[in-house]
This record gives sequence, structure tokens and C-alpha cells, in this order.
Amino acid sequence: MRIKILKPVLASNDALADAQRRELDKAGVLGINIMSAPGSGKTSLVERTVEALKSEYRIQVIEGDIQGDLDARRVAAKGGRCIQINTQGDCHLDALMLSSVLPRVNLKKLDLLIIENVGNLVCPAEFKLPTHYNVTILSTPEGSDKPTKYPLMFSKSDLLIINKTDLLPYVSFDFKQLERSVRRIKPRLPILRLSTKTGEGLEDWLKWVRKKLSGRNPKP
Amino acid sequence: MRIKILKPVLASNDALADAQRRELDKAGVLGINIMSAPGSGKTSLVERTVEALKSEYRIQVIEGDIQGDLDARRVAAKGGRCIQINTQGDCHLDALMLSSVLPRVNLKKLDLLIIENVGNLVCPAEFKLPTHYNVTILSTPEGSDKPTKYPLMFSKSDLLIINKTDLLPYVSFDFKQLERSVRRIKPRLPILRLSTKTGEGLEDWLKWVRKKLSGRNPKP
Repeated sequence: MRIKILKPVLASNDALADAQRRELDKAGVLGINIMSAPGSGKTSLVERTVEALKSEYRIQVIEGDIQGDLDARRVAAKGGRCIQINTQGDCHLDALMLSSVLPRVNLKKLDLLIIENVGNLVCPAEFKLPTHYNVTILSTPEGSDKPTKYPLMFSKSDLLIINKTDLLPYVSFDFKQLERSVRRIKPRLPILRLSTKTGEGLEDWLKWVRKKLSGRNPKP
Repeated sequence: MRIKILKPVLASNDALADAQRRELDKAGVLGINIMSAPGSGKTSLVERTVEALKSEYRIQVIEGDIQGDLDARRVAAKGGRCIQINTQGDCHLDALMLSSVLPRVNLKKLDLLIIENVGNLVCPAEFKLPTHYNVTILSTPEGSDKPTKYPLMFSKSDLLIINKTDLLPYVSFDFKQLERSVRRIKPRLPILRLSTKTGEGLEDWLKWVRKKLSGRNPKP
């Protein structure tokens, strides 16, 4: 029964997300969807990105949380424009939830839309969003065995960020194991290592974002 | 539509879990369900528990993972009896999944059933299992803001374990913020602090388990 109803739900979500993405394309906006388990550093990465790029690009952040606006307030404190979506229990964002907030975003006056998904290494990977790229964060304390255990999330990613490299001396994290298991799931998935706390490796991430921004559709 | 079908699904899951729990009670078996985000230390806690208690009690572990048997092999290496459930994409364990493995467990020759749920701070909290107690683990690198953001998981818990206290010097974790937010969700939720890595605080957890074991129904 689960499968029977899940398939049409996912198909209609995909269709809506595709339509929303065409609106982004028409307006020359790049969309990035950031996913990870709780506490891997999604909001910290968004804060760092807003701080670094807000003078160059017009950025809108959409924060997905089950409840509360802690993250939206953190992003706003860094000078970022931010809308909070509360899923009221749902374990992921989807295109329908976004359709209720996207009309409040002026795409004509925007370069970059960052969507921070609900902290969850399973469900968000099933629901397409209007974004062009999926970025997954795995933090070093979570362990290098996670791609093998949560393969869908990694197979749906366009970039994998290993965050909290500052904790490497204190945790067991085996980069060779990680790379081996990622290669099995998605052979060409690029992997960046950084620390949102110390800023180490952050420049590689910003370079990746800038490159994608330069490759987006031209503003009309 | 989601709500309409979700309610009967959850109700029938609850009924099945209750029936399974009565079987545990009849046989004098204590059941514990361990939940957390990915990488918080569920398997490490199970390993430590099996090592410490296997000479005193007969223990069966059931490992829930989306895919693979990494965790089951870890538990087996510590001398624990272990059955692996692969959810094939599902973000949680439920009573129906357990009904397919419980017949393989001889409850008459068992004292303690430990179920390790899928790593996810959202979905597992919605599905009752045959267990008597829900134990939630939050590890210090995940941050002390998590109860506010994932309230259902904390409201369904009977014990909260703060793991990875060995990393406290290197991460920002505010115990006062944590306690304040937990009190708002579940005023009397007991909180233990420990490190499955160093073993610090582990004796408090083992004491809790022993106390619950002594309070279970007598073996027939």
C-alpha cells in the first residue's frame, strides 16, 4: 500500500519541482539544496556562504525545520535574507511546501537561492526541489561508514562536503573507507573537506559556488 | 491525503507493537529501543552494553539499517547475538518489520532485547515498537539545540543519553540550553552523560539497564 501511494506522490512532486526550476532558470537564478543529518553543519555553511558572498551576489535562504526558527535567526544575524518553513512534523522539504513561499521571493532581483533541508540523511533525498544542485554534508564525528548505510542520499548528491575537519584528531574517520564507499555509489561525486568552524577548506566550497553561479542562465 | 492514510497506518502499527510487547511480558523479557541521528553512537552503546552484561544476562540485538550489515557484524564481534533488518529505503523500523524476525528469537531463553533503530531523529519516533523503553542518544558535536528542532523524538523518550562527552573540549555544547529545552518538552526526562569511546559515565547507563531488568515481569 505504501508503494502504491508513494509513487504518484513522488511523481507529482517531481513535476512541480521541475516547473519551479524553470522559473528559476528563466530568472537566471541558481538554486542549491543542502542536506545532511542533524548537526552536521548545514546552517554554519549557510552562514559562512552568506558572509562571504553577500557583497557579490543577491542571496535568498529558505530554512527547512520541523519546528522553530533558530536557524533562520542565525542566518538573518549574518545579514542574509531568510524565510523559514516549518514542516510541522514532516521529515523533509518538498516542492509543495516551497510553492507556498516562493511567491514571496523576487527572482528577478536574485542570483542565488539556498535551501537548507530538514536535518535527515534519509527522507529529503526522495523529494526533488526546484534547486539545480544537491549538496550533502557529512561531518567527521558521524563516521566514514555513512555512505554504505544511507546510499540514496549520496547517490542523489552533486557535491559531498566533509565538514568538521577540525575534529579529525579526536574522532575515527577513515577517508579511504569513505572514498571507496562513495565510489561504489556514485563514482564521480566530487568531495570537499572543510571546517565551517575554522574556515579551513572553505575557499574550495566558495569556488564551487562561484563556478556554478557563472554557469547559470543569464539574467534576462 | 497524507494524514488520512497515516493515521490508520500508525494505529495498526501501535496495535501490532502492543501485541508483540505482551509476548515479551509473558516471557519476562525487557525490550529497549535505541534511537538517534546517524553517527551519534547507537552501535557503540550496544557494543559496550553487550560486552558489560553478556555474562549476567541473555541478550538479543536487532539492528535496523536501510542497507547492509555493518552494525550487526560489529555487535557479533563483541559476542552478541544479532539479527539484521534492512528496511530497503524506509526511514524507521516498525512493528510489521519486527514481526518478520521476532519468530526467530526464543523469548523463553532471553532476558534483554535491544533494538537499534535506523539513524534518524525524526521518523522512528512515530512508530511504536514492542519495546518497553525508548532511549534517545544525542552526541555533543550535533549541538545542544536539537530538542527544540526535533521535539517529537525527545517527547517520546524515556531516557536521554548525551554521548561523546570526550569531545566537549572541542565542540560548543551548552548543557544548560539542552536541559532548558528538554524540560519544556518532557519535564522529567532523565539525562545521562557518557562517552562510549572512553567509557566515562557508562556505569550510570548500565545501572539504568540493570534496574529496568530487575523491574521486568518475572520469567515464567
